[in-house]
Amino acid sequence: MFINIGVIGGSVCSAEICDLAYRVGYLIGRKNAVLVSGGMGGVMLHACRGAKEAGGITVGILPYGKEGANEYVDIAIPTHYGLARNHLLVRAADALIAIDGYIGTLSEISFALNEGKTVISLHSWELDRERITKGRYIQAQSPEEAVELAFNAAVESSQIQ
Amino acid sequence: MFINIGVIGGSVCSAEICDLAYRVGYLIGRKNAVLVSGGMGGVMLHACRGAKEAGGITVGILPYGKEGANEYVDIAIPTHYGLARNHLLVRAADALIAIDGYIGTLSEISFALNEGKTVISLHSWELDRERITKGRYIQAQSPEEAVELAFNAAVESSQIQ
Amino acid sequence: MFINIGVIGGSVCSAEICDLAYRVGYLIGRKNAVLVSGGMGGVMLHACRGAKEAGGITVGILPYGKEGANEYVDIAIPTHYGLARNHLLVRAADALIAIDGYIGTLSEISFALNEGKTVISLHSWELDRERITKGRYIQAQSPEEAVELAFNAAVESSQIQ
Amino acid sequence: MFINIGVIGGSVCSAEICDLAYRVGYLIGRKNAVLVSGGMGGVMLHACRGAKEAGGITVGILPYGKEGANEYVDIAIPTHYGLARNHLLVRAADALIAIDGYIGTLSEISFALNEGKTVISLHSWELDRERITKGRYIQAQSPEEAVELAFNAAVESSQIQ
Repeated sequence: MFINIGVIGGSVCSAEICDLAYRVGYLIGRKNAVLVSGGMGGVMLHACRGAKEAGGITVGILPYGKEGANEYVDIAIPTHYGLARNHLLVRAADALIAIDGYIGTLSEISFALNEGKTVISLHSWELDRERITKGRYIQAQSPEEAVELAFNAAVESSQIQ
Repeated sequence: MFINIGVIGGSVCSAEICDLAYRVGYLIGRKNAVLVSGGMGGVMLHACRGAKEAGGITVGILPYGKEGANEYVDIAIPTHYGLARNHLLVRAADALIAIDGYIGTLSEISFALNEGKTVISLHSWELDRERITKGRYIQAQSPEEAVELAFNAAVESSQIQ
Repeated sequence: MFINIGVIGGSVCSAEICDLAYRVGYLIGRKNAVLVSGGMGGVMLHACRGAKEAGGITVGILPYGKEGANEYVDIAIPTHYGLARNHLLVRAADALIAIDGYIGTLSEISFALNEGKTVISLHSWELDRERITKGRYIQAQSPEEAVELAFNAAVESSQIQ
Repeated sequence: MFINIGVIGGSVCSAEICDLAYRVGYLIGRKNAVLVSGGMGGVMLHACRGAKEAGGITVGILPYGKEGANEYVDIAIPTHYGLARNHLLVRAADALIAIDGYIGTLSEISFALNEGKTVISLHSWELDRERITKGRYIQAQSPEEAVELAFNAAVESSQIQ
């Protein structure tokens, strides 16, 4: 069974953020893990593109049908749940990397922490630490650091199971 | 059809926060609206108690079975979705009031905003306004103000539909 | 807390079936239970109408938004899950009554049995008994018998919890 | 993007049914499609084993956590929805093959038909044709025929999208 790393972020992104997403995806693909995302544009698309160029596998947990997936999604999982698909994406991931992002990304970060998961932040939301009573929310400075931290958390999580 | 006002907050609360929740629930009940909550303890329980004392109706969207509901829930909706029931609660509400709360409450606030809803905050999370691209997140200073703002948003939302 | 009786059936119905649904709803309302349904037309609408005329409370677990509810729904729970809302309706009910119905009704009957619930059939699907390994699927001859059997099962189910 | 073929059936199976499931999985794997299942034992396990021996990819949409997956699942999607994960499995599949099965399998067949999908039956439930108003429910006589019919339906479904 593969390790699943979730990548979350906005469906539009600046050139700089798109590059970060690509790099994160590339590193996940090279480590032979599955990249799980919402399967749409922006951070999701660039991360999937990176994973594919590194020879990895990408899963897109889609809000509606398969036709909404970006062209780098290998395995499309249409849910027709709308934005509530975010929590399925979170549950599918052993650990997550949040890159930048808006209110949808916050709904994923907070649900993941509430489920006790580890979320690595790359230029994403800053949150009041005193109110985070579950999960781990860790800042990373680079794609390399983010992917390493996410893998460590994913492996640790698998061993606990 | 009734207006549904969602009340979200932690499953444990200080005496001061419990009083606020009770007062919010009481005002919702007196206005003949349905109070929708997660149906458990803390803010949820005290809000339900207030609504019942004012003669209102309470709905609890539960993470597991009916046996988990607090004693002031009239209509229990067991989901067996665990904490993913939070997004069903959000969808069931025409507008929401967040009272204090931890990471679970943040998952509800952010999902509600992502769905374009209005959330009134009473001593709840402070969020980076620049990243909130959907919905409305409004601070209230008192239960009276919170309930009035939530009702206005709920009525407006019904008229748009 | 109220007992919740689920009523399931097609969104269109013949005059005879509509009358049965009305009568089932009326009897549920008179027993002071909550009638839970999919909140749309046909069997759902006529059952809700019956419950309201008997002074009962109706909950509609809706596939999309509140605007889709029939006029006899008191408490609308929009899910935006499409037809997957059927399984939430099933989980919300302590016991269910299936009246006539097509493939959507079968998806509710089978999911309810799979969750170990009791389903009372009034002119609904006939199923191969040997393949039913969970739950109870009982034929009733009249609305009176159906409601009595459903109540007994609901009370029994509450006591087990 | 891959074609996703769903395989549904009981979590226990006779030697004969297990062989059919293995053969169905093998043929799906050889056609370079993704085999989507509930990821547990019985028909699911033997179908996954077949797909892996043919070099295919298997996705398991799990009722709870990853630890419940059978050893032939490549990509585990934990949902923690319990048996309600069945409808996610159905939505993830472009077409489905039902092999034998009990009430859980019926909940998948009926939900799939209700969503307008094609389900191929191999020794599975016989249903009253007059009540099937959506989708297509087709009997196959062999694993070869079942997989061919499912592929044709999946390709057709992709072209409609």
